[in-house]
Amino acid sequence: MREIRVGLIGFGTVGSGTAEVLRVQAQRLQRKTGANIRLVRVADIAIDRLPPEFAGVELTRDADQVVTAADIDIVVELIGGIEPAKSFILKAIASNKHVVTANKALISQHGREIFAAAAAKNVEVGFEASVGGGIPVIKALKEGLVANRIESIIGIMNGTANYILNRMTDEGLDFASVLQDAQAHGYAEADPTYDIEGIDTAHKLVILMGMAYGAHVRLDQVTTEGISRIEPIDIEFAREFGYRIKLLAISRNHGDSYEARVHPTMVPSRELLANIGGAFNAIQFTGDMVDDVLLYGQGAGKMPTGSAVAADIVDIARNILNGAINRVPSLGFLPDTFKEIEITPLERLRCPYYFRVTVQDRPGVLSAITGILGKHGISIRSMLQQGREEGGVVPVMMRAYEAEESAVRAALAEIDALEICTAPTVKIRIMDED
Amino acid sequence: MREIRVGLIGFGTVGSGTAEVLRVQAQRLQRKTGANIRLVRVADIAIDRLPPEFAGVELTRDADQVVTAADIDIVVELIGGIEPAKSFILKAIASNKHVVTANKALISQHGREIFAAAAAKNVEVGFEASVGGGIPVIKALKEGLVANRIESIIGIMNGTANYILNRMTDEGLDFASVLQDAQAHGYAEADPTYDIEGIDTAHKLVILMGMAYGAHVRLDQVTTEGISRIEPIDIEFAREFGYRIKLLAISRNHGDSYEARVHPTMVPSRELLANIGGAFNAIQFTGDMVDDVLLYGQGAGKMPTGSAVAADIVDIARNILNGAINRVPSLGFLPDTFKEIEITPLERLRCPYYFRVTVQDRPGVLSAITGILGKHGISIRSMLQQGREEGGVVPVMMRAYEAEESAVRAALAEIDALEICTAPTVKIRIMDED
Repeated sequence: MREIRVGLIGFGTVGSGTAEVLRVQAQRLQRKTGANIRLVRVADIAIDRLPPEFAGVELTRDADQVVTAADIDIVVELIGGIEPAKSFILKAIASNKHVVTANKALISQHGREIFAAAAAKNVEVGFEASVGGGIPVIKALKEGLVANRIESIIGIMNGTANYILNRMTDEGLDFASVLQDAQAHGYAEADPTYDIEGIDTAHKLVILMGMAYGAHVRLDQVTTEGISRIEPIDIEFAREFGYRIKLLAISRNHGDSYEARVHPTMVPSRELLANIGGAFNAIQFTGDMVDDVLLYGQGAGKMPTGSAVAADIVDIARNILNGAINRVPSLGFLPDTFKEIEITPLERLRCPYYFRVTVQDRPGVLSAITGILGKHGISIRSMLQQGREEGGVVPVMMRAYEAEESAVRAALAEIDALEICTAPTVKIRIMDED
Repeated sequence: MREIRVGLIGFGTVGSGTAEVLRVQAQRLQRKTGANIRLVRVADIAIDRLPPEFAGVELTRDADQVVTAADIDIVVELIGGIEPAKSFILKAIASNKHVVTANKALISQHGREIFAAAAAKNVEVGFEASVGGGIPVIKALKEGLVANRIESIIGIMNGTANYILNRMTDEGLDFASVLQDAQAHGYAEADPTYDIEGIDTAHKLVILMGMAYGAHVRLDQVTTEGISRIEPIDIEFAREFGYRIKLLAISRNHGDSYEARVHPTMVPSRELLANIGGAFNAIQFTGDMVDDVLLYGQGAGKMPTGSAVAADIVDIARNILNGAINRVPSLGFLPDTFKEIEITPLERLRCPYYFRVTVQDRPGVLSAITGILGKHGISIRSMLQQGREEGGVVPVMMRAYEAEESAVRAALAEIDALEICTAPTVKIRIMDED
């Protein structure tokens, strides 16, 4: 039986999960490929030995023993971060190895260099696990929806942020206490910045946009806002008007330009995206032929992510076995057809808005605020003042009809400059009703 | 530029949709494959000419001009039904053509013969469009979840049935009037039997089970019940207790046997499957590594189904271009590893149940019914009698705790034999809370 030899760098959560998937599914994968897909070596500097069930797998502290070893076909990079992951991957490619990675930070920021190096060497780079954890979202986009112009990508792509928002919504808790609890239980990192500030979601959006449009997209082109300023009263107001707040990645294809934004969004409760519970992810593509397709599942975790890494390994193994390397281009489109695109300036976005203005409770306050909004062409659809406290500080929540982001920014700058305004206004965009 | 030449049999809804997808997306597919994927000939006996946008595509009444033509690489069968579709496909395979079809009736009942013929000739048979319309459900199962033991398949796989149940639920209408309206608007066929009696759903379940388990499954092994006996009071009762009624295909993997059933089911409202609106489909796989993955989208329709057919064409085209025919086995597992499996007898199923008993309203009736249920070990959790009419006929709705199907059948046989029972009892299985 032919053998496909896999080397792994990084035996952390996803690394050990991947090793476990390959071990447990070995026979099943033989029944599907006719080959023995075998983990032969692991490089990790933090462990002294592999668990006993991996007898027969070598452990080394020297990544080169995997990255440049003559007896390895596929190098799996699961250490995360930019360096040394990037150097390891480029060295593996230079040594004619195929590469599989779950590294969204790296692929979103250095993908162009990595894919060019791989194309030059005619090796493959698989990255299914970089978006949506175990959900086969990249294969669905690249292959399943191959015959579509992608009109939009909308998704919940960060499980930690979704978990926090769900607990705030279901239990009425505030952001800080849910985060603390999530950290204590290992659902959130010690430094949660990437998850809660939308950066991780932006990484994933960049990767999907590249494949959806056959275009180069840079991380700095994505407008990114997080969820740390969301308060229970925002969630309560949303519920009252039939919305749930979700951290969404959104890209719409306008033909001459493409939206690229990550921010908390009020989603109508009857939408599937509003009902994605726990730490689950859901990604919806709209194609001009297929209409909406949504994929849902575990966006992270040891075994689900290991499942996606293993799927990439099998895909590449099949290409090795059939002499069909780069049968599907890494990013769906042939590299020489990739194009530069324009990102739609956020200022041009039009959607309904929610505002929470924090003001001193004095006569005339509301008239001052609505006056400024009106001057900028922003019409209020409903308004709610929380409590009454003459001279005290109160939040005023407002839902506005569709307005342009540029007008909203100008109006909020004026409002926030008012003496009666004691904190920056929080704005949350509302997803259009279809 | 290399050319992949496609011939199409059947220019009906899906056939013309597929032609349209290939026409509109031609340039995009070039950017993705480097080849010109071109529809060269259409065989159809019902039309005299193709629409003007298909100038350059030949039309013939003779299917052999497509099926056996030397200048065709891929034959696309979109006439549906068993014959002559089966003969055309076998003839195409015998003529060394690759085949793409959306024909679930055919694949579910004659797949074994067709795939064996294709394996013998080393040609491919694509059938993505046979399940879930435009949703890339087959690719997700075969490739995305390749490294999983599939623990269960649960799905809404028939758009017409889902549409009827949704309108009954949202508008309180009865089955017959929604069906009539759906037929008038073209959402349901003139003969809706396959859709409403669960047969179409059973076809799809057979196809998915084969790929999920690497096993031969026959259509007659699927227990199939439809939705035509559902009444508004069933839906109302379900709503009251937090359920929505859906026509589900269900298969659970018990290791030594596999469930295979299609029937209306009360689904807890917070489950995504309960919230699949309109005529949409949703299919959920549970893998031992990946946990739940759900795919949602248009389960039918001209362009969505055309999108799936085109994806198969591109997949095969890539294999032709790379000399990698049958890179992925038709059914996911290598043909010589396919096994016979045992289907779990439905009698052994355990789940909560809903019953609607139709009885004469007389003293002692309830005690007779609950006595019989109790004798068979079935405990009632809640009960509701609709109206009161001494001596008249009333429905009594009951929700029972988990019970075994065999006990339920025995109990209902006894109940239905009572003189006071004026119509067969309707039972609906309830999906277990996780």
